[in-house]
Amino acid sequence: MLKIAMLSTGEEVLHGDIVDTNAAWLSQLFFENGFSLSKRSTVGDEKSSLVEELMMLSFNSDVVIVNGGLGPTTDDLSAEAAALAGEVELVEYPEWTEKLEAFFAARSVKMPESNRKQAMLPQGSVIIDNPIGTACGFKVTINQCDFYFTPGVPSEFKLMVESQILPDLKKHHPNQTGMDCSKLHTFGTSESALSDKLDKLELPEGYFLGYRSYIPYIEVKLFGPKGDMERRVKLLQLIFKLIEEHVVSVDESMQQHVAHLVIEKKQSISTAEQSTQGQLSSWLHANEDAAEYCGHGWVLGSRLDVGQNEHDALAAAFALAGATKDKCGTDISIVTGRVKEKSFSVAIATKEGEWGQTLSFNRTYSNQDRVLVITTVAADMLRRYLSSKPVFPHYSSLTREKEMFVPQSALMAK
Amino acid sequence: MLKIAMLSTGEEVLHGDIVDTNAAWLSQLFFENGFSLSKRSTVGDEKSSLVEELMMLSFNSDVVIVNGGLGPTTDDLSAEAAALAGEVELVEYPEWTEKLEAFFAARSVKMPESNRKQAMLPQGSVIIDNPIGTACGFKVTINQCDFYFTPGVPSEFKLMVESQILPDLKKHHPNQTGMDCSKLHTFGTSESALSDKLDKLELPEGYFLGYRSYIPYIEVKLFGPKGDMERRVKLLQLIFKLIEEHVVSVDESMQQHVAHLVIEKKQSISTAEQSTQGQLSSWLHANEDAAEYCGHGWVLGSRLDVGQNEHDALAAAFALAGATKDKCGTDISIVTGRVKEKSFSVAIATKEGEWGQTLSFNRTYSNQDRVLVITTVAADMLRRYLSSKPVFPHYSSLTREKEMFVPQSALMAK
Repeated sequence: MLKIAMLSTGEEVLHGDIVDTNAAWLSQLFFENGFSLSKRSTVGDEKSSLVEELMMLSFNSDVVIVNGGLGPTTDDLSAEAAALAGEVELVEYPEWTEKLEAFFAARSVKMPESNRKQAMLPQGSVIIDNPIGTACGFKVTINQCDFYFTPGVPSEFKLMVESQILPDLKKHHPNQTGMDCSKLHTFGTSESALSDKLDKLELPEGYFLGYRSYIPYIEVKLFGPKGDMERRVKLLQLIFKLIEEHVVSVDESMQQHVAHLVIEKKQSISTAEQSTQGQLSSWLHANEDAAEYCGHGWVLGSRLDVGQNEHDALAAAFALAGATKDKCGTDISIVTGRVKEKSFSVAIATKEGEWGQTLSFNRTYSNQDRVLVITTVAADMLRRYLSSKPVFPHYSSLTREKEMFVPQSALMAK
Repeated sequence: MLKIAMLSTGEEVLHGDIVDTNAAWLSQLFFENGFSLSKRSTVGDEKSSLVEELMMLSFNSDVVIVNGGLGPTTDDLSAEAAALAGEVELVEYPEWTEKLEAFFAARSVKMPESNRKQAMLPQGSVIIDNPIGTACGFKVTINQCDFYFTPGVPSEFKLMVESQILPDLKKHHPNQTGMDCSKLHTFGTSESALSDKLDKLELPEGYFLGYRSYIPYIEVKLFGPKGDMERRVKLLQLIFKLIEEHVVSVDESMQQHVAHLVIEKKQSISTAEQSTQGQLSSWLHANEDAAEYCGHGWVLGSRLDVGQNEHDALAAAFALAGATKDKCGTDISIVTGRVKEKSFSVAIATKEGEWGQTLSFNRTYSNQDRVLVITTVAADMLRRYLSSKPVFPHYSSLTREKEMFVPQSALMAK
């Protein structure tokens, strides 16, 4: 079996100043493609620890992905450590010096002297292109182990891995068979509630379920053999049926899914936000094509109350949704009311009628997470309306205190 | 120097299903207390990899914290692997069996047979109490290296580390002194430009600089001996002077700093956003106390243009800022105009006058990052105004195409 390791470098990763999302991302991508990591490690910027770890990994692995330490500053030592570990010289790669000079010339800036270092690589390396940054990656063999060195900046790292490193691995190790992974994104339930429903399911050999939980979603993942499409689709349908009420999207994020619905249904949308303070508008704008359907949005100052007391909050949000829709001339309007104690109201006005609900939190959230949950509830009302699903589902993490629906015909009659 | 490592275990950590927040937390806590980690590693649940890694760490470290794999299920193998690596037997610790029985009795549940395994520890171990869970930790010495085994559940792990492991380390290694770290957050420049300016600085023994780059900020970090306050403050002042133009906050995030300025200056703020789509409003609301000063906000539909062509964009944003301020009755209003080609306009209206600028991006950003940069430019105008600094600085990552300032007196005269 191919032994693959990843080494993350940098004091800021080692000392926990930043969470190593590059490593989590790579692990998952490699796992899905049949290149499961057998080990990950992290060291700081000290040259001796770097060299020591590179040596250790070279003896115990077939492939190592090294991340970070390719920048222009003096604490970026990955290339130097690789040369030491491989007992070769650092040499200038003139093609990269030229790229660097062109990069800065295009920005009408003189290349800082410190960047010159980024073209110095261990002798025998093969450059891995970085089309969006100044740090090139490189591949070099040390003690018969293939090392891929990559920059720490996530966008540069990810592009390099997807477009160059993974294809190179597949070329050199064509017999690694990956797993397929399907993801069902759920909202408003708990991991144990999901697993209680799914544990009964008998999965065929080679298939298994995984869960990944992060506010506000829980992902259910079905792992199984690559290319086994017919069986996979049937299994997904079974799983979907068992947890349908909570599934907000399949194999795409909820945000992408809602964007696709908006584009498909060609519905223009306006917003009026109190508790979500612009985040709902921002959420709806994330997809550039769906953003074309976004009409105006209001963020209501925190000193202005929508509704004087809890009884009024729902009615006020409800009325505001209708008024916003009329005023903006959009097909749909969504309103998030202020949080009072532990409850909040959300309302959606459409050409078929208006829905409004007051919900309360069943657990304690940070302010930031609270905003995220309210934004998601509001977006979920839109998703449910656009997919002709019941607009008021059962959420185990939220209690519905009140709900209200008035069809368009009744609104017209007023 | 004491060599301390951390080993995280579990397929879900290795394969990136969960981000290893325990490791980030421990690294930071240990760093601040003078027990800097020299290495972190992660392996899966396979017994052979676990034993191999424990052996390797035992030869290269003085202290190792192992996290995870102490649960009751068959894939929890840390205690067994420790016994194998240390060449001792697993033996029952009756005091933990009693605790387990009491734990379940208190919940009126019969103890599942699988939990009995949690009282089986390598011979010679010392139990580390877990007051809130069924997995006890333990300390055991393998090849003269002290291993502390801890449960993966974050709350149990953290309590154990804080109340038992860290105090034990301090008792056995009383001479470890931690480091202090000061952070200067910068915006609108590059890591190489910063290091070109700071590289000349001769730092005293024990002090060094680190950089951390993530859109839209670059942090400059000054590491140095603990408690050396007078010298640290002087160094910080030196560093600050060299890069003052780009520093947006010191030892707090820019968002916190701006929130504190808003509260201190008691300035109410309204917003009108086109390119930032609600994100500026959301940014300003993040601090609950500062949110009290947020007046209304508008998000302008993407079909509505502020300004018909590039020439008009700045004038339009400028006019809109004044109108929004008057209409909302706030002290300040901030406007972000639409992105055209690669340029965008931002304007701020205050009681002292109005500032507006059109900037263009010098590099390619994702849509999301572009919004983040524009939001930060707008917030930076607010910060500069509130701290009586020049509102138009030099940004190396952005080119200023136009700027405009009209003092309040001239606005009144119109």
